[in-house]
Formats: sequence, C-alpha cells, structure tokens
Amino acid sequence: MTTYAYFGPAGTFTEAATRSLPLGADDELVPLATVPHALAAVREGRADRAVVPIENSVEGGVPATLDDLASGTPLVILREVLVNVRFALLVRPGTTLADVRRIGTHPHGEAQCRRWLAEHVPQAAYVATSSTAAAAAALAAGTATYDAAISAPIAAQTYGLETLAEGVGDNPDGVTRFVLVSRPVPPPLPTGADRTTLVLSMRHDHPGALLQILDELAVRGVNLSRIESRPTGERLGDYLFSVDCDGHVDDANVGEALMGLRRVCADVRYLGSYPKAGQVPADRERAVADARFRDSAAWLARIRESGTA
Amino acid sequence: MTTYAYFGPAGTFTEAATRSLPLGADDELVPLATVPHALAAVREGRADRAVVPIENSVEGGVPATLDDLASGTPLVILREVLVNVRFALLVRPGTTLADVRRIGTHPHGEAQCRRWLAEHVPQAAYVATSSTAAAAAALAAGTATYDAAISAPIAAQTYGLETLAEGVGDNPDGVTRFVLVSRPVPPPLPTGADRTTLVLSMRHDHPGALLQILDELAVRGVNLSRIESRPTGERLGDYLFSVDCDGHVDDANVGEALMGLRRVCADVRYLGSYPKAGQVPADRERAVADARFRDSAAWLARIRESGTA
Amino acid sequence: MTTYAYFGPAGTFTEAATRSLPLGADDELVPLATVPHALAAVREGRADRAVVPIENSVEGGVPATLDDLASGTPLVILREVLVNVRFALLVRPGTTLADVRRIGTHPHGEAQCRRWLAEHVPQAAYVATSSTAAAAAALAAGTATYDAAISAPIAAQTYGLETLAEGVGDNPDGVTRFVLVSRPVPPPLPTGADRTTLVLSMRHDHPGALLQILDELAVRGVNLSRIESRPTGERLGDYLFSVDCDGHVDDANVGEALMGLRRVCADVRYLGSYPKAGQVPADRERAVADARFRDSAAWLARIRESGTA
Amino acid sequence: MTTYAYFGPAGTFTEAATRSLPLGADDELVPLATVPHALAAVREGRADRAVVPIENSVEGGVPATLDDLASGTPLVILREVLVNVRFALLVRPGTTLADVRRIGTHPHGEAQCRRWLAEHVPQAAYVATSSTAAAAAALAAGTATYDAAISAPIAAQTYGLETLAEGVGDNPDGVTRFVLVSRPVPPPLPTGADRTTLVLSMRHDHPGALLQILDELAVRGVNLSRIESRPTGERLGDYLFSVDCDGHVDDANVGEALMGLRRVCADVRYLGSYPKAGQVPADRERAVADARFRDSAAWLARIRESGTA
Repeated sequence: MTTYAYFGPAGTFTEAATRSLPLGADDELVPLATVPHALAAVREGRADRAVVPIENSVEGGVPATLDDLASGTPLVILREVLVNVRFALLVRPGTTLADVRRIGTHPHGEAQCRRWLAEHVPQAAYVATSSTAAAAAALAAGTATYDAAISAPIAAQTYGLETLAEGVGDNPDGVTRFVLVSRPVPPPLPTGADRTTLVLSMRHDHPGALLQILDELAVRGVNLSRIESRPTGERLGDYLFSVDCDGHVDDANVGEALMGLRRVCADVRYLGSYPKAGQVPADRERAVADARFRDSAAWLARIRESGTA
Repeated sequence: MTTYAYFGPAGTFTEAATRSLPLGADDELVPLATVPHALAAVREGRADRAVVPIENSVEGGVPATLDDLASGTPLVILREVLVNVRFALLVRPGTTLADVRRIGTHPHGEAQCRRWLAEHVPQAAYVATSSTAAAAAALAAGTATYDAAISAPIAAQTYGLETLAEGVGDNPDGVTRFVLVSRPVPPPLPTGADRTTLVLSMRHDHPGALLQILDELAVRGVNLSRIESRPTGERLGDYLFSVDCDGHVDDANVGEALMGLRRVCADVRYLGSYPKAGQVPADRERAVADARFRDSAAWLARIRESGTA
Repeated sequence: MTTYAYFGPAGTFTEAATRSLPLGADDELVPLATVPHALAAVREGRADRAVVPIENSVEGGVPATLDDLASGTPLVILREVLVNVRFALLVRPGTTLADVRRIGTHPHGEAQCRRWLAEHVPQAAYVATSSTAAAAAALAAGTATYDAAISAPIAAQTYGLETLAEGVGDNPDGVTRFVLVSRPVPPPLPTGADRTTLVLSMRHDHPGALLQILDELAVRGVNLSRIESRPTGERLGDYLFSVDCDGHVDDANVGEALMGLRRVCADVRYLGSYPKAGQVPADRERAVADARFRDSAAWLARIRESGTA
Repeated sequence: MTTYAYFGPAGTFTEAATRSLPLGADDELVPLATVPHALAAVREGRADRAVVPIENSVEGGVPATLDDLASGTPLVILREVLVNVRFALLVRPGTTLADVRRIGTHPHGEAQCRRWLAEHVPQAAYVATSSTAAAAAALAAGTATYDAAISAPIAAQTYGLETLAEGVGDNPDGVTRFVLVSRPVPPPLPTGADRTTLVLSMRHDHPGALLQILDELAVRGVNLSRIESRPTGERLGDYLFSVDCDGHVDDANVGEALMGLRRVCADVRYLGSYPKAGQVPADRERAVADARFRDSAAWLARIRESGTA
C-alpha cells in the first residue's frame, strides 16, 4: 500500500495527475492544502509519495514547488506526468447557462478563462475562492454565493456536480507538468530519454557564474531544457537556478557535468533523474554518448598505466 | 497633468509605489483591476504611465507583468521603485485582536503571512479575497464575512480602517520592485548606475542559444543581473528570457552587446534603460568603459583610413 | 617605377614570387641578404615594397618574417603569392648526374630533399651554403667545393647553370606563401575572400587570454585560419600570437572583432587586409554578413533615438 | 648502462644539456646528425634515451623536434632541462681577436650573434657551416677556411680549442629547453609542478575547434603554458597543435581534460608528464585541486547509489 499526498483539495488537476499513475487497489490518495504540506507529508513519513505541479506551459514554473524542493530535507523526483489544462464549468443539477449570474473560482482559474467567460457567460460576475476545487466543493455543499464553478473536469465526479461546459479556457494547448516525489531513493534505470532536475546555488557576487554553469554542461554535451531563476528570498538579485537537463545521473556525460557543477557552484541539489513523459526512449544515442566517454576513460587509463595509448 | 494607471485596487503596495513617485498636484491616479489592464491603458492612450510590480524578493518575477511587457505594442520602462513588503492587519474601528475570528486576504497575502498569523492570531480562520485591498474594501463597506484584513499599510487610509498590527509578514526583508511604464520614448540620460531590461526570444531547437546569449554579454563586459525564463505559451520547453543587464542602451558596451543579441536571437525586445533604484551613480566607471570603447573605435578608424594606428 | 626589395640572393623562390607580381617595365628588383634587411629597406624608404616568405606548408611560419613584422616601424601586407616549392638540381654545363660527388645547398634545402637525394644521387656528400642561391652562385663562379647545387628552378637562368633534375624534393605538394609588404597605406578594397593578419600581445600572467581572444573572434563569426605563438624573446612562456583571420578590416564583423581584441590585448598590431591567393571572391556572403551588422546597427540607432525599434 | 642519443655533433648545447643529467659512470653518449636521427635511435632500440631541443626563448618551438615527436611510433618525454644559450668564440691556440678575418658558424648562430660580431669583430667575414659544432671541428682539424668559430662553450673541450670570448650573443637571456625522450613508460610521479605535453589534431573544416580545445582545458582549470600550430604538411591551413599544459596526467583535472580532448579532437597524442625545470613543487595546490575532484566524484557516487548526497 502506497500513500500519495497530493496538492489538493480533491477535484483538482493534481488529483487527475495522481490518478493517471499506475496505482494499486490499496493505494491511498490524500489531498493536502498546499504544495508545502504535500511535500512535508513525504519528508515526515506520513506519505510515501507526493504529486505536485512543477511547470505550466502558460504560467511557467510553479514557485511553491520549485522553492520547496530547493530547500529543507532532500526529496527526489521519480516520474513526471503531463496533464492538459482544460477547465469545466460546473453547476448543481438543473442550473442552465442562462441561470448563471455569479461564477466562483481561484484567481488563477479566472485569469486563464477570462476571454472564454466574456464570450460565453458575459452576464456573470466573478467570485474569488481559495482553489478551483473549493469553488466546486462549496457549490455542492450549498454554501456558495455563486451558482457555477470553474474547476478541473475531475471535480464533477468528486463533488457530484453537472458539467455545463467542457474545454473551458483561453489557451487550448495548456499543459501542466506534475512530478511524483519521494524521499531519496536510487534513480529509476536510464531509458535513453531521461531528465535530470537540479537546483544550483551561485557563489555571491560572481557575475559570470551562470555562463560558467552553462559551459560545464555544454562542454560535456549535456542539453539544458529548462532554467529558471528563483529568488533566494534574501535580497533582490540573489538567485538560485532551477534547471532540467536532458539525460540521467547514471549517464557518463551527465555524471561528469554534475561533478563540474559541484565544483563551481556554492551548492548543487540533485532532485532526481526520471523518464521524460511522452518521449520515445533513445537508447542508441545514449549508448553512443556513453561509449565515447567509456572509450576516453579507457584511453586515459592506458596512458596512465603504460605511458602510451 | 499626467495620468498614472496602476495595478489596483486602491490601497495596495502598487498604489504606495505610485505615490512614491514625484507626482504633480494635477496628476491623476487610476487603479485598474489587473496588470494587463494597467498596461493596456497606456498602450491605448487612456493613461500616460502605468505602475506595475515586476519582481519580488520572495516570489520572484511577476509573471503577469513579464508576459504582458513581452508581447503586444511595445512599451518602455522609465524608472523603478523599490517598496518594502510589510503587511498590516486592518480592522474596523473598535475591533481588538481577540475579536478576530476570520481574516480576509488574497491567497498570496495569506501565504506570506502564514507563520505570523499562526503565532499572533492562531484562532483566526482564513477567507480568500480577490486582492489584499479588496479584503480591506469589503471590510470597510461592511460586506465582508471576516473581521480583519491583511492588506498593504496604505489601505488603512484608503478605506478608513484601523491598523491593529504593522510589519505583518513572515519575511521582514521582502522587497518588491515596481516599474513605471510608458509608450516608447527616448531613454532617460545615463547616470552611471543604470539597468536595461530586455526580452530575448530564441530560435527554435537551438540548444546552445542561452550560452551564446550570455557570451554576447560577457564578451562586452556587460553584467547580467536577472534572467528569467518565461514560457512562450506555445508548448512546454519553449522559452523567452526576460533579462536585466547593468548599463544603459547609450553605453558603448551595452549598445554593442544589444546588436550582438539582435543578430543571434530570433527577436530582441528592448524594454528600457533607467536608473537603478537605491544605487549611487558610478559616472566614472561608466566613463572609463565608454572611453575604452571609443578608443578602440578611433583606433579602428585610423587603421581603416591609413593602414596604421 | 617601383623598387622591390626581396629576400635574396637572386635565384631563390622569393625572386620567383616577386616576378609573379604584375611588375612594370621600369620596376626594379633588389635582392637583400635577409628578411630583416628587405623589410628595413621598405621601412627606411630605400625600397617601395618588400617580398618575403611568411609561411611554408612543411616548415610552418617563417620566424624571421613573423618576428620582424611584429616589431619596429609598422608595415602592412598588400598581397600574398603562393609558390610551389620544388627544387632543381643545377650543374655547370657538361656535368652529368654520375659526375656529382658533392652537392651544395642551404641546410633547409638539404632537409627538404634528403630522401630524394638518397634515392637519386646516393653517392653525393652534402656541403652547407648560406642559401640555396649562394650554392648556385658559387657553382657558377667556379669557387664552389661541390659540383652540383640544390636551388630554386629560377637560379638556373640567374646564374647560367644547367638543370639536371626538376621537381626535386621530398614533399611534392610543398607550398610557400610570400607576402608583398609596404609602408602603411589604406588596405586594398575588400573582395569577399580576404585575409587579415594581426600580431596580438597578451597581458602578462593572464592564463585565459588566448581563450578570450578566440572568443572575441568567434562571437563576431570571424574565422581564424592561422595562429602561431612566437616567443617575445624575453623569457620562455611569454608569447605573441601571429594570426590570420578570414575577412577584411573594412568588414563590419572583422572591424568589431578588432576593436574587441584591442580592448583585451596588451597590444594589437594590424598587418594588413588583402585578397587570399587562389580563392574565388565570395561577395555575396560578405554582403550578407555586412547586412546583418548594418541591420543591427540601424536597429540600435532607432532604439536609442525613439525608445523602440 | 644507459645509452643517450643526442642531437649532435659533439660540442653543442644539446651535449651540454645531456651532460647536465644525472648520468651514471657507464652511460654512453652518442651524438647523431639530426633530431630525427636521435629520436629514431630510441624508437628502434639503438638508444635508451634521446636528448633534443624543443623550444627556444628567441626562436620559438624547434620544428624538427615538434614534428618528429608528433608522428611515427609514440615516444614520451621524461624530463626537461633548461640551458642558457650563450655562445663562445673559439680559436686555435695562439690566435688573437685581431687575427680573426673569417668566422665560421651555422646560419642560426650567425643570426643570434650578428650585433655582437659587428661590435667586437667588425673586420670578420662570415662563413656558413652545417652546425656550430662543425665549425669548431673543422677549425680544430685544420680544414676550415676561417680562423674562428662561434660555437657552444662546451665545444672548446670537445675539440681542444681556445675560448677567445664567452657570453657571445645578442640576447643575453636566451634559454633553450631540451627534453629527455624515451620509449613509452609510465610517467614519473607527480611533483605538484609538472608539465604535460600533447599533440592535438583537429577534425577538418572545424573552425571553432581551437576554441573548443581551450574550453575543454579551461573548464577543468588546466592552464595552457605553450601552444604552437604546426603544419600537417598536407596543405597550407591544416594544423596540428603542439601544447604544454600545467599539471600531470595523474592529476584528476588533467585526466578529465585529456578525456575531453580525446572526444573533441581527431587525435590526441600524449607526449608525457614530467617535472617543470626550475620550479618549486606545489604539492599543496595540487592536493587541493585533486581533493576538489575527489570530493565531487564521491558526491556523485553517493547520489547514484542512494539518490541523495
């Protein structure tokens, strides 16, 4: 039995992401109020795994997740899941679109559906709620001051509401990347299409540090697929960098690059190597790159031993 | 008479930032509901200037501002203002701390004050509002379902409330950087301690692009003080980079670096050169750097003309 | 009337290179004993031009030329000439190959023909002379202690000797590059296939200096076609770099790169921009590169003037 | 008993360099006519070691040595020796300075002493010989057409001549670096002040190759102390690079850099790691650098094993 803490409440895209995992019949899903709560549950042993959003194709990195993973007791990412972000307009059974006068949702949900709402429900006013699922929950409970909720589609089942409209949202291609987080364990086996997530802290007052970091990766042929600066919270202009690299910690080139980063950064936090969602493994390419590194290591060993290759 | 649109409502830190500018007696301040609304007012000529938050020492870059400035009709930043982010706990006259059962604020405000609230008002439940000022406004109007609001200190005057506690917040050193935005105009004169803000778009599938960008800056001795990737909204992994450089577009080294970026990037959007808030101008250093560039240009001109320097 | 000083004596490959230039009927050719003598003649006004070897496909750079051009009164290269280095075995009329017991030539000539000599004249001993032409001259004058000379083919005419064998040498593809040197004058017009020759002095104790130099070129897309370290003569490990770049000082990218080098090097000596021998001009490519630089300069000018591009 | 082949004849600076080694009573010194002959003797087992000049503070790299070591059966450098290059003016007993009418020496010797000769023996003409020692030998044998020789000081003893002047030469600080060469053997133990010599072949038509090479070194903090391009002899513009790096092949950073070079170069030829002549070992610095590499390797191993450092 595995316990999954997820960034709740129930009825959110995060729950949808969690349910897309290969769950066992006995597995337990526990919605927690915030990303830090979900991650703390894993850190403290109250849950085995956490599922939290890390990056959104419209909003960018999710600060709460990036910042929480970057500090505190180490955690690692085991897996990533992509979910299309299309909302649903939910109502209590019997309500029609014409009846909708006020719509409840989280400010972010409102921001992502503004054009859709202006076009399809122009008469409706907006009421802020603490989450998109909370909007659905209060509506179902009869405590809401509004008569429709903008929520994740999954909230309809969770709270017994009716779906008045699907595919709600201004950006039809919005995707959110969620990660499955665990206490440190050895990484899953390399697949040839892996991602490695890191948090890099610079030494203070080191203007060329970012260039140096990118060079450590480039020299080893490691591609950087995401980089985000995050404030350290100490003062404006102090940053951590949250980065994703292509490749696996067990790959020779990624390993050598990590050692290089370790030497030039004030701190390197390893957040896991895991298969890229939706990518065909490229075993051959990985094998070729690894072979080049193995070949050069064997060549060096021969020279060190005998003075010639 | 100048009209300032700012990210409202009234009674926020953005209003405080706006009021810290050297305003004229006739100047008009217009709160608008969102950052995009405030910037649109300038773009469309309904306002002369907009004041919006761009970066926070705890949360990082403000996505709404970064993304809105990065697209649409060009705008430029004329000036920056730093504001300490310390909240106030506001109540209607007569309410004491012991009376407070429910506290209204924006989810972000709640996030930034969570530890403070747990310590000082442990009995109070949290009610989400659409902004920290909206919390104060509803409280003042008597329509709130809570009896205290977490808002910017300025909201007390704006809405006629009493300040029960000042300096509220979990991060006493939190600072937000606001920018004063205009339709394109020539930049203010260089001061020797300037900042230049840019948005850089990469060509697709160009893994070393970021390294190349940093190299264009480094070769000209231009320091990068902030870099943030922002999704283009098209697909996960497509990024723009929002960057701040030290220096002014009229500086020789910054100018040459900008031309280099223009050649290697798919697009470079210039968002203004303006004095760094809270920094002593370093005219001499700037003069020295400019002199080195002028000297090398004169040297090249002599060679081209006469074959010798 | 133009006076050409060349690295003599008469009858060398350098004379052959000089005679391959478009000479006027009145032009005068003056052989001088050493490369420094030929260059000094131009510096001091006793000659208008000098022709000296600069690089050999087998031996590499010619130290005497590289070092002399690198110091003293500035000179510039106007043109380059490629000459195939195939020696001739010269004798006084009547001598047959079987008669040859001793062969005179410069030690370098001997080094380049050693295998040929072992195969074709195995019985012959070697006698050192101060130049390959001096070998021919003494042979012609009857003062030689040998009965054949290894010289440039042109020496047969110069000294009235007979050519016993042509195409002598161990490396049939050997080529020497000669340069036509002048007191400083504006460079010839760009052709689209030009070369620019420079001497770069590093600041002392600056380990990354060479990397920085290459980066100044790479960032502007300027290709380095030759680089040679030359000792400064001061102590082991102090170097100048003699370099050739593709492109012309009037090209926008070369110009900007030169200014960058001027800023990072202790000294940059410009030794001329001139057409590459044996290369088809690539006007269109040059025009494209220049257009990109002009476009970025115009773009910057618009921003500086109006705040937008 | 060890047999040392050296670039002869007897009585040269190379013999002086050889005699400065810690020789055993039984060791045999064999002068050979050229650098290639001396190296071939080691390659073919006729000698155990060869001593050849590799670099001169005035003339630069010695092409014959650089080119011969760069090809053929691999050899390694075990040691380097520095010799001050001050010539002596040698005569047969009884000859005075006033008697000297003609002076014999190698053209290079003449070039390095020209100013000295003009000042001290202005009346003397110059006669070319095949080496500076050959000048002394012929003088001693009575077969010379000159009455003084410019040779290495050691030639006086070798040939039984008198030293008329010491310290002859235009560059009083001239130093030549000689290397002791062997068939491949494991390198001597690191001393903390070592040098590693390499020959790097570029892939064809790879304009940024040199930049890439320097970057492989720079990223590992390996300093490049000498770099010389040498023509491959195939066509103008095809180069090998002969380089010296600070550090020892057994040093962690040098080892990693070598593996990187091996991956980006068409070929890397290792020519040995050996103590720098005249340098105080810096064991502590080397230990610190190695410790940083070991620390990062241990850190990576922990992550690979357990998912956390």
